[in-house]
Amino acid sequence: MYTMTSSSQPAKLWVKTQTFHTSPPQGFDLVLGGKLKQLEVAYETYGTLNHDKSNAILICSPLTTDAHAAGWNSEEDKKPGWWDEMIGPSKAIDTNRYFVIAQNMLGGCKGTTGPASINPDTGKPYGSSFLKITVEDMVHVQRLLVEHLGIDVLEAVVGGSMGGMQALQWSVSYPDKVRKCMCIAAAASLSAQALGFEIIGRKAIVNDPDYREGDYYVNGSPPEKGLAYARMIGHLTYLSAISMRQKFGRNQRPNTDREHFETGFEVESYLNHQGEQFVQRFDANSYLHITYAMDTFDLASRYGSLENAFRDSQAEFLLVGLSSDWLFPTEQTHELAKVLLNLKKVASVAELDSPYGHDAFLLEVEHLSRVLQGFLEKPTYSAKAAATLHPSEKSVLDSTRDLDALAGFIKPGSHILDVGCGDGAFIDRMFHQSKVTGVGIDFDLSHVVDCLRKNVPVVQGDVDHGLSLFGDQVFDYAVLNRTLQEVKRPRLVLREVLRVARKAVVAFPNFGHIGNRLSLTFTGAMPITKALPHSWHDTPNIHLFSLNDFQELCARENIVIEELICFPGSLPSRLILAAGFKNAGAEFVVAKISRKR
Amino acid sequence: MYTMTSSSQPAKLWVKTQTFHTSPPQGFDLVLGGKLKQLEVAYETYGTLNHDKSNAILICSPLTTDAHAAGWNSEEDKKPGWWDEMIGPSKAIDTNRYFVIAQNMLGGCKGTTGPASINPDTGKPYGSSFLKITVEDMVHVQRLLVEHLGIDVLEAVVGGSMGGMQALQWSVSYPDKVRKCMCIAAAASLSAQALGFEIIGRKAIVNDPDYREGDYYVNGSPPEKGLAYARMIGHLTYLSAISMRQKFGRNQRPNTDREHFETGFEVESYLNHQGEQFVQRFDANSYLHITYAMDTFDLASRYGSLENAFRDSQAEFLLVGLSSDWLFPTEQTHELAKVLLNLKKVASVAELDSPYGHDAFLLEVEHLSRVLQGFLEKPTYSAKAAATLHPSEKSVLDSTRDLDALAGFIKPGSHILDVGCGDGAFIDRMFHQSKVTGVGIDFDLSHVVDCLRKNVPVVQGDVDHGLSLFGDQVFDYAVLNRTLQEVKRPRLVLREVLRVARKAVVAFPNFGHIGNRLSLTFTGAMPITKALPHSWHDTPNIHLFSLNDFQELCARENIVIEELICFPGSLPSRLILAAGFKNAGAEFVVAKISRKR
Repeated sequence: MYTMTSSSQPAKLWVKTQTFHTSPPQGFDLVLGGKLKQLEVAYETYGTLNHDKSNAILICSPLTTDAHAAGWNSEEDKKPGWWDEMIGPSKAIDTNRYFVIAQNMLGGCKGTTGPASINPDTGKPYGSSFLKITVEDMVHVQRLLVEHLGIDVLEAVVGGSMGGMQALQWSVSYPDKVRKCMCIAAAASLSAQALGFEIIGRKAIVNDPDYREGDYYVNGSPPEKGLAYARMIGHLTYLSAISMRQKFGRNQRPNTDREHFETGFEVESYLNHQGEQFVQRFDANSYLHITYAMDTFDLASRYGSLENAFRDSQAEFLLVGLSSDWLFPTEQTHELAKVLLNLKKVASVAELDSPYGHDAFLLEVEHLSRVLQGFLEKPTYSAKAAATLHPSEKSVLDSTRDLDALAGFIKPGSHILDVGCGDGAFIDRMFHQSKVTGVGIDFDLSHVVDCLRKNVPVVQGDVDHGLSLFGDQVFDYAVLNRTLQEVKRPRLVLREVLRVARKAVVAFPNFGHIGNRLSLTFTGAMPITKALPHSWHDTPNIHLFSLNDFQELCARENIVIEELICFPGSLPSRLILAAGFKNAGAEFVVAKISRKR
Repeated sequence: MYTMTSSSQPAKLWVKTQTFHTSPPQGFDLVLGGKLKQLEVAYETYGTLNHDKSNAILICSPLTTDAHAAGWNSEEDKKPGWWDEMIGPSKAIDTNRYFVIAQNMLGGCKGTTGPASINPDTGKPYGSSFLKITVEDMVHVQRLLVEHLGIDVLEAVVGGSMGGMQALQWSVSYPDKVRKCMCIAAAASLSAQALGFEIIGRKAIVNDPDYREGDYYVNGSPPEKGLAYARMIGHLTYLSAISMRQKFGRNQRPNTDREHFETGFEVESYLNHQGEQFVQRFDANSYLHITYAMDTFDLASRYGSLENAFRDSQAEFLLVGLSSDWLFPTEQTHELAKVLLNLKKVASVAELDSPYGHDAFLLEVEHLSRVLQGFLEKPTYSAKAAATLHPSEKSVLDSTRDLDALAGFIKPGSHILDVGCGDGAFIDRMFHQSKVTGVGIDFDLSHVVDCLRKNVPVVQGDVDHGLSLFGDQVFDYAVLNRTLQEVKRPRLVLREVLRVARKAVVAFPNFGHIGNRLSLTFTGAMPITKALPHSWHDTPNIHLFSLNDFQELCARENIVIEELICFPGSLPSRLILAAGFKNAGAEFVVAKISRKR
């Protein structure tokens, strides 16, 4: 499929767009009613399907792209496929490992059946007779293609924007045919704001006098002005305020024709250019049908609730939100995550910090690659569960006295939430040690990637807010391992962990430890110790407290301390602890707590 | 002008729109070239002009409003003027105190000269012959009106959105004719993103076949479809994602005609309705001319730089940003504030937390009222400076031993920045005590209003980020009064205060105080004292440190502690302090620091 040259640049990956034709005997039923007699699907593949056909990844494409996702079609191409930076040998979606399928969606105008295709009943383009389609229809067509390629279960479906909607639909429509579902910059439905822009865009097309109810293919010109407006409006929703500022600011183009209230701002030339380019390559009817399918996509309303939609899905999920995306704001990513996590699905959420708005899923290649690769690299959760751990691997599991104590508090087979999970080592250890399942929360992208690599489900987020994602008593245990003293509102976090979990296990440095007291008393400086290693001005430990303080707060909050293990520091504190003075003797404390009944 | 009835509801304020006609002998020169021979300006007034004509406030109006800003024109009115909630007896803009002037802007279609007015040269509507206008022209016309009403200096100009641009232009064009300039949800120019939406909106109008180059008044119908699109696009920029979600979500209207790809979503009906309503009440040419003036408004490019634009202005400024406004994001408010503050203008910035997007300036009446009223209520800075303080007033000035010590460090006549200024009492005290001028930073709206009431210039913002507003060495002193232990990054804040000011005066509770040491040592709990009154889990003091810690950090950061005053707590610590043990004896420390040279 590709060859390496001796230069440092890999050789171009040459690829040819193919077409799959099918005429199902009873026709292809559309969800909103009616049938299509014939179907054509344009597609490309990259990499090699393995012997047991278990390495196939389907790329679901966004609004206006085509089947040419990666590589080069011909020497004349000025640029490679639209997601070439993500798909290829040794790239995030690694064609050395995976057999990757890209395709043009139903309703499109790039080789797959759409409104500009010939209607077999009339011998003329469908135009106004093309029936309304849905994202579900698109996915059913993709399933036909996948079966045609001899594949039963997909290793992964992956899609950004509208492709993310298709990826979600796959896990709902074919709950046992997808092992990993990767949904980037998308949601289970469009927001009211996004709908508003879409609606205005379509209105511009259907009100263009050239539109003629969609039958503009013969004797006439297409509704180019309307389509160009729609594209311009759409384009603004793909960018962000910051990216537009960086790109254009208020720069003026010299010698601009200022007729018709044109301003000469670069942003105006850019929008004009986007509109002009788009009408050359896209069909207005396809734009109408596909955006309509996007607008009416709504898993909650289609299946009664999101819980119903995803209940049977066996896929593992990766949801990626983009911080400055206002077409699919990250709140929507979190809402979907909430549903999946409360259904106890294996689901992870990453939130990429990017100034580039919705388009970041095409631009933030490096960060997105790390996340996708981390998620793809490791075996699925069930495969991980089935694997026997080597003794040598066991020895690398993180094991310290306090982690052992925490672990000892947690019953085998429990479901846990690790609040401030770091690299996921604790959940991973518990999984191997006693078949404990769990989810981590951490705000750091590197930690999130570490978790993904271990196949530890993880939600990227702020602990002070992140727990709102979880329903009441979803977990058996919440773990606060060196986290409580780092949060902004410790009391609220304690309340929250005992809302989402039946019990919590808490490990914290005890500021009441004799070493801290003496250090402060005799040096007059904030203590720097093994348990509290940071200097005062640069410490994440913003709410220091002693064991006494903790006990007092628990009492006031109606929290029972069921078990308590104190770890002394040096020899004197061992003696103090042995004498029964816990608050003075303990350098580090591990406690199991629950709400008083 | 109004009467109170015996009911609890105030009687309606009846008002009549008036017209001011003028034909300047040489015509009215337009900034971009050309003249208007005649001018008409529709206006209303509320309240009574006082004897020395010093109580006049001009309302500058946003894009599509008219001169009818408050009260009721007739019994048939379904609602009062567009800003009636802000203007009236005992309202934020109090017509019992002020003589308030509202008007329709140049280029409008509500009684002021605009493209639909009769061109005196032809006897027909201007249409395509109406010359391009600017915000500056609008303000010059407003000046003619103000002079016609016999007023030389305005007590205030106030405007939201495009009205805010006019208010800024007033302070630039007439630097000595405005005492207070209140700019709400506006900026010194539109952002690239906002330009994008405006440009697409105008394009829809000029490409409407009914537009006919603007000459649609005679023999034809106006370009209603294009104007409706433009309005719909504009409307989306006035709302926010949250407000649209609350208002519409994905609700469907039953029995909607689904032709032409209509979705039946409530947001669609709403947009359609907005478009239909708008074309009934607004002229497309006015929309084109006014939005074009808005887009090309750019004080920095017009005057070379924002500094040049505002250099001579004698106005005091209040800039109000709205947290969810994406037409005029708060970053733009802060950029403008930065310029004004670095020019040492009297300027305050409030940022209203609102989910309602740009429209919040019409909706967040309560919060906006508090801010505007606070700013209007007090005499101007110069009046305050001229006033002699009564002895009884002096006694209410905040005076404690540590504030006295802080005050003692600051030379009379200095310019200071109070970081975490609270209610502004310290700056106010310093102003009265030794003619010190200054600016405060605080994130709390109540504190901001308190500052405004005292006429203490204040910037609403987060101390950890807020200092980026200020240029190098703009201040003589920065004040960190009980602030350093509350910030997220104390080291960075220390660096920043010594960047923006030559010296800093710092007051902080000393965690090394013997009382804290003994309390921790003997109770084993985090100390709760007069200097540190909060419990550990609920304290703003997230970076506790001792005097020793502070001294060590200063040494490491090349910061000189020029003077140091230690305040003991109870008697034992007095003795310790007297014995020379500062870190043990001081409960509270006040220091003057500067960067080592």
